[in-house]
Amino acid sequence: MDSEYPLLSKINSPKDLKLLKEEELPEVCNEIRAYLIENLSENPGHFASSMGAVDLIVALHYVFDTPYDRLVWDVGHQAYAHKILTGRMEEFKNLRKLDGLSGFPSPLESECDTFMAGHAGNSISAGLGMAIADKCTPGNENRKTVAIIGDASISGGLAFEGLNNASNHPNDLLIILNDNDMSIDNNVGGLHGYLSDLTTSAGYNKLRNRMALYLKKKGVLTEPRRRAIIRFSNSVKSLVSRKQNIFEGLNIRYFGPIDGHDVRKLVKVLRDIKDMNGPRLLHLYTIKGKGYTPAEEDPTIWHAPGCFDPDTGERFIKDDKTRAPLWQEVFGETLVELAEKDERVMGVTAAMPTGTSLNYLVEKIPERAFDVGISEGHAVTFAGGLAVAGKRPFVAIYSSFLQRAYDNIIHDIAIQGLPVTICIDRAGLVGEDGVTHHGFFDLAYLACVPGLNIAAPTDAETLRNLMFTSLSLNAPLAIRYPRGKSNRYDKEASLQVMTPGKGRPIRQNENAKIAVLALGPVIKNALEAADKLSKEGIETDIYDMIWMKPLDTDLLRNISTRYSGIITLEDGIIAGGFGSAVNDYVQQLERNPKIINLGIPDEWIMHGDIPHLQSKCGYDSEGIVRSVKKLNGEI
Amino acid sequence: MDSEYPLLSKINSPKDLKLLKEEELPEVCNEIRAYLIENLSENPGHFASSMGAVDLIVALHYVFDTPYDRLVWDVGHQAYAHKILTGRMEEFKNLRKLDGLSGFPSPLESECDTFMAGHAGNSISAGLGMAIADKCTPGNENRKTVAIIGDASISGGLAFEGLNNASNHPNDLLIILNDNDMSIDNNVGGLHGYLSDLTTSAGYNKLRNRMALYLKKKGVLTEPRRRAIIRFSNSVKSLVSRKQNIFEGLNIRYFGPIDGHDVRKLVKVLRDIKDMNGPRLLHLYTIKGKGYTPAEEDPTIWHAPGCFDPDTGERFIKDDKTRAPLWQEVFGETLVELAEKDERVMGVTAAMPTGTSLNYLVEKIPERAFDVGISEGHAVTFAGGLAVAGKRPFVAIYSSFLQRAYDNIIHDIAIQGLPVTICIDRAGLVGEDGVTHHGFFDLAYLACVPGLNIAAPTDAETLRNLMFTSLSLNAPLAIRYPRGKSNRYDKEASLQVMTPGKGRPIRQNENAKIAVLALGPVIKNALEAADKLSKEGIETDIYDMIWMKPLDTDLLRNISTRYSGIITLEDGIIAGGFGSAVNDYVQQLERNPKIINLGIPDEWIMHGDIPHLQSKCGYDSEGIVRSVKKLNGEI
Repeated sequence: MDSEYPLLSKINSPKDLKLLKEEELPEVCNEIRAYLIENLSENPGHFASSMGAVDLIVALHYVFDTPYDRLVWDVGHQAYAHKILTGRMEEFKNLRKLDGLSGFPSPLESECDTFMAGHAGNSISAGLGMAIADKCTPGNENRKTVAIIGDASISGGLAFEGLNNASNHPNDLLIILNDNDMSIDNNVGGLHGYLSDLTTSAGYNKLRNRMALYLKKKGVLTEPRRRAIIRFSNSVKSLVSRKQNIFEGLNIRYFGPIDGHDVRKLVKVLRDIKDMNGPRLLHLYTIKGKGYTPAEEDPTIWHAPGCFDPDTGERFIKDDKTRAPLWQEVFGETLVELAEKDERVMGVTAAMPTGTSLNYLVEKIPERAFDVGISEGHAVTFAGGLAVAGKRPFVAIYSSFLQRAYDNIIHDIAIQGLPVTICIDRAGLVGEDGVTHHGFFDLAYLACVPGLNIAAPTDAETLRNLMFTSLSLNAPLAIRYPRGKSNRYDKEASLQVMTPGKGRPIRQNENAKIAVLALGPVIKNALEAADKLSKEGIETDIYDMIWMKPLDTDLLRNISTRYSGIITLEDGIIAGGFGSAVNDYVQQLERNPKIINLGIPDEWIMHGDIPHLQSKCGYDSEGIVRSVKKLNGEI
Repeated sequence: MDSEYPLLSKINSPKDLKLLKEEELPEVCNEIRAYLIENLSENPGHFASSMGAVDLIVALHYVFDTPYDRLVWDVGHQAYAHKILTGRMEEFKNLRKLDGLSGFPSPLESECDTFMAGHAGNSISAGLGMAIADKCTPGNENRKTVAIIGDASISGGLAFEGLNNASNHPNDLLIILNDNDMSIDNNVGGLHGYLSDLTTSAGYNKLRNRMALYLKKKGVLTEPRRRAIIRFSNSVKSLVSRKQNIFEGLNIRYFGPIDGHDVRKLVKVLRDIKDMNGPRLLHLYTIKGKGYTPAEEDPTIWHAPGCFDPDTGERFIKDDKTRAPLWQEVFGETLVELAEKDERVMGVTAAMPTGTSLNYLVEKIPERAFDVGISEGHAVTFAGGLAVAGKRPFVAIYSSFLQRAYDNIIHDIAIQGLPVTICIDRAGLVGEDGVTHHGFFDLAYLACVPGLNIAAPTDAETLRNLMFTSLSLNAPLAIRYPRGKSNRYDKEASLQVMTPGKGRPIRQNENAKIAVLALGPVIKNALEAADKLSKEGIETDIYDMIWMKPLDTDLLRNISTRYSGIITLEDGIIAGGFGSAVNDYVQQLERNPKIINLGIPDEWIMHGDIPHLQSKCGYDSEGIVRSVKKLNGEI
C-alpha cells in the first residue's frame, strides 16, 4: 500500500496530516481521490459528492485541531475523505457492509464524527448547540465548531431555522456552504437561483474578502464596526451582484464564493477566518465528482454509481431488461398511467425524483409533477393545498424522511380528511444505508392517527390497485413499500378498486394450527417458512392482511376462532405497529390464541445486507420456522 | 342587537359586506372590535391578535370574492373577525365551548375556512398548493388565493420551505405578512431584526409601491421587465434601507410595509395588487390589541387574557396565592433549581417561554435559556448539539407542536443516545384549544423509538424528581405532563433519583380482582372511581406506573398473576400508547387477565372543557366505574 499511497498511508489521524507541508496537500487530495476510486469501484458507495469534498476535508483537518475542534457534517455521505483521514483508511474497505463502517458519519463509530448525519439539514442547528455550549464552558471558549452544509440541504426548513437562530446568542460557529449546484437530482427553489447568481459575482466578492482580511490584520475590524461595514458592503454588493445577501440579512457574516478545489487557497482562507468572532458563512463552489471525468460529466448517475471499471468509467450495471421492476418503478409507472386517465392526479416528491421514480411523471406531464427540494414538511402540506383545490396528489417520500413531515400529515392532511395519497418508499429495512435510513417507524407513527388508511401491498398488482383505489377513496391513504424488487406485472390489466380493511388468505390447509398474518412483501419469508415446515409435516396457513388500518377485524375474528397460534409479521418496528394492532384487537375477543409478534425489535439496527439484518431481527424464514415450532410446542 | 351593531348585524356573509360603501368600512371595523370586546370579556379567547387583524380581514372580504377566492389563515386565532363576517356572528358567543365554534379556522366548520390553522407556518405551503392547482384547472385560472402569515410564523422552517418553493411553478399566490413584531411572547431570530429594519424604511417603500402601481397602470410592467425592475429597485432599496430584501432574493415580489389599520388604504392596495401575476408578498405593520388600550400596552398578557371588565380593562384573575401550582410552573421552578445547582443545565423552548414557564430561567439565568422562536425542529437538534458539548438541556415544547420535531428526536437525539430531556407540556386533552392542540399522540409516536425513556409523573414531587433523575441518566428522557393544575409541593424537599421502569402501588385491597394501571395525573379519575366502587362493595386496586418506557415488566408479571382483570388508563390515544404496550407484554405471559384499555379512542376529539371530553372518551371516573363492572361481569 505504501507505494501506491505514499502520503496517505502515513496518516493515521489528523495530527499526522498536520505534519505535512502545505505544498504536499494537493498530492494528499490526489491520493485520497485515487483511494476512493479504487475502493468505491469495487464496493459501491456515494461517489460523486465524496469526490467533490476531498479538498475541503483535507483543508479543514489541516487548519483545525480536530477532533478537539468539531466538524459537523450534513448528509455526511460526502465525508468519506474525513473517514479516511481519521484513522479509518483500512476499515474503509468494509464501508456499508455488515459490521463495517457506516456510510455516514456516526458518533457511534468515531469521536471524530460529532453528530449523526444521515438526514439533511441538521448540521447548523447541531453545530450551533456545540458552539454556544463551548462559549459558556470555562476553558472551551476558543474551541471551534464548523458546520458543513450543502446547497440542497440549506433549502430545508431545519437549516433555515438554524440560520435564523445563529445570531441570537454569542457563538463563533463557522458554517461552510459546499455549493455544488445540485442535490442528488437537480436543485430546486428560489434559494437555488439566488445562490447561482451569487456565485457569478466572484469578482466583487474577491475584492470584498480581501478588504475584510486587510481590516482584520490592521485590527480595525472590531465588533462595533463590523455591523456598519456589513451594512455598507452589502449595499455595495447588491449593486455589483444585482442580488442581496440572504445570510447577512440574517446577521451571519458572509465570505465567498471561493473555489472549493484549490486546497492551498482553502487552507489560507480557513486560517484567516478561523479565529474571527461571531457566526459566519464561507461559500465554496465545488464540482460533484471532481477528479473523475465521467462523474463530473454526469453527477446524477454517479451519485451512487454501483461498481465500475476505474480506468474506463464503465459501470457494471446488473440491470437487464428481463429483471422484475423495482417497487418504486411500479409506483412511477402507475402514477403516469393514472395521471393520463385522470386530470386530477398530481405527483409530489422532496428532492427524490429519481429515487422514487417520480421522474417518470416529470418527463411525461411536467406541469403536474412537483419536486419541492429537501422539504418534506412542505411537500405534504402543499399536497394538502392541492387536494383542497380538487386535485388528487400522490406524495412519494422515503419512510425515514417522512418523519420530517409527521405534523404535516396529522395537522394538514388527516384532521381535515384530505384525499392525499402518501406513497412511502424505502419502508422497512433498507440495508446498506443503515440506521438513519431504515424505514423503522412509519407503521407505528401513522397507525395512531385517526382517519388515515394505511396499506402495504405484497405485489406489484396490489400496489397498482391501491393507487387506483385512492382515487375513489375520499380520505387520506398511506401506501408503504420497500426498497428493491417487486414482481413483473401486466401493465394492461384492468385496475381494480380494493376494499379498505380487507385481507385475504394465501395458503390454507385444514391441518394448520398456526396462522401467519403478514403485512407487505415480507410475506415471502412466511411462504418460504411454510414450505420448509410442510416438509417436516407441519402445516402453516398464511394471510396477506394488506391493510394495517383499518384492520380486517372480520378476518381476525375468524382466525382467532380457527387457530391456536398466530404469528404477526411486518417489516417495521413491532411496538405500535401491525403486531401491536393485532394484539390490541385479539385480546378483546372471546378466544385468544397465543401470539408471537415478528418484526423489528426495540433496538437500533445498523447497516448490512437485508437478509442478514432480517435474520438478526428474527423475521427471515428461519426465524418464522422457529416461531411456528415454538408456538406448536406451547399450544 | 341591531341598535348596537347597525352595520355588522346586516352582514350574514361576505356578500353583504360588499354591499357597503367604502367609507362605511372603518365603522364596520369599529363594530367588530366592540363585538370582540363584548364577547371575549365574558367568554375568554385569543384577544390581542384578533383585535390587530380586524382591518385586514374586513379589507380582504371586501376586495376578494370569498369564499370562491380563498383565504388561508395561519395560527388562525387571529381570525375571529373572519368568523364574524362569514355567517358565524351569533355562534361566536359559543366560541371554544363544547359543540360551539372552534377557536381556530376549521374546514370542518365552514367552507370559508379553507385549511386547518392551529399550528403555525402552514399557510404558504397550503395556499401555494391551492394557487398552483387553480392555475391548471380550466375555469379556475383567475381564482385567487391569499395566504396570511404572521412575523413569528414566518420564521419557522415550514414557512421558509413554502417561500422557497413559491416561485417554482406558475401561480398568483398573494402572501400577506401581518407583522405585529411579536408572537405570543417576544419574537426572536435574525429574520425578526431584519423585518424591524425593513419596517422603518417606509418612506422608500411608499415611493417604490407608487412607482410599481404607476407602471402597472401604464401597462409597462410586463413579466420580462418585472425581473429587471426588481433587481434594480432592490439595489436601490438596499442603499436606502441599509438592508436587503430576503423575499425578493427568493423571487417573491415585495410590497410594503403599509399600515395594517388603515382599512381604506388596505382596500386600495389590495385592489391594486389583486390581479397581478406571480407570487407576491404584501407586508403590513399592525399593532397587537389595536383598538383596546390595555391590550395595546401589554400584548403578551392580552394574548389570551381570560375574562375582563370591558370598560376598565381589569382582568378577572382567578389566580390566588393559595392555589396549587400549574404543571408548567413546577417544571419552570425545578429547572431554575437544577440550573442553580448544576452548571450543565440549560433550557430551550420554541416561542413558548410564558406557556411553558421557561421564562423563570430566562429571568434568572438568561445565558442558559434559549427561546428559538417557532422552530421546534431546531429546538431539539440544537439541544442535541448542546448535549454533545457536555450540557444537559431541557427542551420544553407542547405535545402537539412536538410533532414538528419528530425526526429530530429520532435522528438527532435517540439514535445517538444523547442526554436531552424533552419536557412535553400540554400532553393529553387540552380542552378549549381543541383538535389541533390536544396532545393525542406523544406516547404512541415516542414509544416506538428505541433507547428513549418516557415517564409521566402523577404529582409535582415526581415531576421534580424525574427532572433531577435525568441529570444522572446518560440517555434521552421524555417527561409528559398536562395542561392545568398540579399539586402544592415542598420546594425544599431533597431531590430523589428515580429508577427507570419502576412503578408503584397506590391502592391495594386483598379482595380486589381488578387493577387499574394508570399513567400520569389522570390517575385521579381512577382514585375517584375506586372510592365510588368501594361504596358498592367492589374493591379496585390502583397502580401508578410512572414509566411508559421502560415498562415495569416485573410489576406487570405480578399483576397478571394476581388479578383477573386489568384496566389501562392514559391521557392519550390508546393505539400504540400505554395500553398497547401493556397488551403487547401481557399477552406474552403464561396467565393473561382480561384487559380493557381506556384513553383517547381512534377518532378526532374536538374542543370543550376537559371533564366533558374525558367523559366522551370514557375515561372519566364514571367510565372507569363502568369498565370495572364490565370486567367483573366477564371474569
